[in-house]
Amino acid sequence: VTELSDLVLEPAEMAELVETLGAIGEQLGGGLVRPVYSSAWALAREQLASWMGAAGLDVREDAVGNLFGRLRGAADARTILTGSHIDTVKLGGKFDGALGVLSALAAVRALAQRVGPPRRSVEVVALCEEEGSRFAASFWGTRGMLGLIDPAELDALRDEDGLTIGEAMAATGFEPDRLAEAVRTDLDAFLELHIEQGRILFDEGVQLGIVETITGIISQLVTVDGQTDHAGTTPMDVRHDALQGAAEMALAITRLAEAEGRPLVATMGKWDVQPGAWNIVPGRVRFWLDIRHPDEATKQRFAETARGQCREIARRRGLRVGSEVLQDVPPMDMDARLKRALAAAADRHGFSHKPMVSGAGHDSQVLARRVPTAMLFVPSVEGRSHSAAEYTTPEDAARGATTLATALHSLAY
Amino acid sequence: VTELSDLVLEPAEMAELVETLGAIGEQLGGGLVRPVYSSAWALAREQLASWMGAAGLDVREDAVGNLFGRLRGAADARTILTGSHIDTVKLGGKFDGALGVLSALAAVRALAQRVGPPRRSVEVVALCEEEGSRFAASFWGTRGMLGLIDPAELDALRDEDGLTIGEAMAATGFEPDRLAEAVRTDLDAFLELHIEQGRILFDEGVQLGIVETITGIISQLVTVDGQTDHAGTTPMDVRHDALQGAAEMALAITRLAEAEGRPLVATMGKWDVQPGAWNIVPGRVRFWLDIRHPDEATKQRFAETARGQCREIARRRGLRVGSEVLQDVPPMDMDARLKRALAAAADRHGFSHKPMVSGAGHDSQVLARRVPTAMLFVPSVEGRSHSAAEYTTPEDAARGATTLATALHSLAY
Repeated sequence: VTELSDLVLEPAEMAELVETLGAIGEQLGGGLVRPVYSSAWALAREQLASWMGAAGLDVREDAVGNLFGRLRGAADARTILTGSHIDTVKLGGKFDGALGVLSALAAVRALAQRVGPPRRSVEVVALCEEEGSRFAASFWGTRGMLGLIDPAELDALRDEDGLTIGEAMAATGFEPDRLAEAVRTDLDAFLELHIEQGRILFDEGVQLGIVETITGIISQLVTVDGQTDHAGTTPMDVRHDALQGAAEMALAITRLAEAEGRPLVATMGKWDVQPGAWNIVPGRVRFWLDIRHPDEATKQRFAETARGQCREIARRRGLRVGSEVLQDVPPMDMDARLKRALAAAADRHGFSHKPMVSGAGHDSQVLARRVPTAMLFVPSVEGRSHSAAEYTTPEDAARGATTLATALHSLAY
Repeated sequence: VTELSDLVLEPAEMAELVETLGAIGEQLGGGLVRPVYSSAWALAREQLASWMGAAGLDVREDAVGNLFGRLRGAADARTILTGSHIDTVKLGGKFDGALGVLSALAAVRALAQRVGPPRRSVEVVALCEEEGSRFAASFWGTRGMLGLIDPAELDALRDEDGLTIGEAMAATGFEPDRLAEAVRTDLDAFLELHIEQGRILFDEGVQLGIVETITGIISQLVTVDGQTDHAGTTPMDVRHDALQGAAEMALAITRLAEAEGRPLVATMGKWDVQPGAWNIVPGRVRFWLDIRHPDEATKQRFAETARGQCREIARRRGLRVGSEVLQDVPPMDMDARLKRALAAAADRHGFSHKPMVSGAGHDSQVLARRVPTAMLFVPSVEGRSHSAAEYTTPEDAARGATTLATALHSLAY
């Protein structure tokens, strides 16, 4: 008989795991650099493999570079998978991705050592690449597992040094032409614990978030064309200043987004003002517009309203405006049965939780295309993310791992 | 007795001068590259020296690289100077600066050949460097003539290849340590003809502009600081998005400037949005704010109002804002007697003219600190400037040169 206490993970254990893994790739001055197929990345995998082996898990890597630790079940054929990614953005923190891998390790290790063999097999996974910070290869590990990598990507994707991702794989001991062997068809469920990367749980003092939906994203490049002129000799009333128009568009879109309210977000994070001289009226401005909402129809309606506002502002100012859709990712709902399993697990321990939208993309949104999937969020202190300041308290991390262990127990035993 | 017709310059003569000089440094696809101390610049000076010599002028260059052609007067000691600069901005046109040099040449050549020796000496000048397009050495030639070059600039100013301006001088045959010899103390007047570089004369169909004042400029670097956040996980209502604030500031400043009306102009031509990723909320935005007005008090008041608006927007959005003054140049009034001489000359030929503000900086604003100075504007077709599309009709150019010759005649004979 399993005691509830058998499923409890302690803050100290979580803190030690985070610090040990987080020392690999850490830079002087803070921040991690652990891109896929780098030496720091390989060291992190060795550390994880060592922990998995010591816990009695069967350790295996696949052709793309994902690392697995399997707790074999009596009915061995099908698998419940849990984990996250171990690559980091440049100068990222010790929690994004890593905490999901380490929580999975701690949870499955506790099940192995305190409860014993499950009925269904449970596997910890360290996914090799999610962030796309070395190559434009987001969700590389997950796509490898689902057969969604186009072989042409092996030669097409290059890092800053010009190395292709295929060459980087080969240099790390992987065989790019065996990619197809990474495909998994035995997965019954995927559970991913992840830091929220926002400040909603932190601000509201809620201990866990159970993701309802991973948000939809539409990313557009907006180009505003006017006329370059001399900044001294061209009166304001005859200018066709692309920057004046782009600033008015940015403010209008911000106000529309503020009026729409949560969970809609609109971000204009990248700007290119040409010719870019202090004494020349800008003739062309390009800005990148990222709009996110968990409801596809709302996302598309807002994007169209934003485009309409831009056209109206351009017309009034004698400018031209065009927008190019760079990426249009629909929202992805999480699996109802797995969400209930996570909520029931949190309830058993008396942890507060709330349904949430994930505003960030995650491996789960790719896996959910083929495998029932759910995500558990733990609080990010002050919402900091993609930064050395990223932090989740050991107590919150332990509540997350405990909930994960309890949910896995309910699914696998 | 001088006939009025002796002072008339013909469109064909002006067109030929412009095309001949404008072929030197012209690029495939259009646009001139003729930066100071380059081979194209040296060729342009040789062409001018040849024309000056053929017209019977005494040709001389000074230690900094200005080229002079002197029509010696009976009372030789004092000089009336006329001309402009022969360097160009990168891919600039054939008229900016050059037309002032060529009009001076044509006018003084006509006086020499048709009227004879003047009472006071008249000199044509091709100033060596005004634009600062190779080195940050604006008004270099003019400053050399007034002893306003700091010798430290010789080693401090470098071009894109890392060459100092002193090294570039030496490579072109000038001796940087003889700079002081370029100083002139014999100047009684300076007349500069220049293209308007704006579209006021063109739009209004007025043939000549007589500059009242060269505008004052205050150039500031505005820095808006907020907080970098994840573009997906940070709700709009908790963001401190520096770009949202900067866009609102840009729009507010634009509206203030539009409300103030001519001749005030405000330009935000250069932007730096950090970290500059499409999926990160901008934490810092810097923009360059250029404000111009011919009245110093109005210029300073507007700059303070703009700063106040920025502070108010930053406060409301939870951002910080600071501004650094990069350049604060007071307006410079032109000499009343010389303006009257130009107006009277235009009237004698029946050319329409109007008083104007120069919104651009010119050599005249530096010379005016020590020497009575006036400027004559000719129309720029569609106001185009600093571009291969820069154009002034031969007829307009001839009216300018004719007016200049007539004014010089009234001053020197």
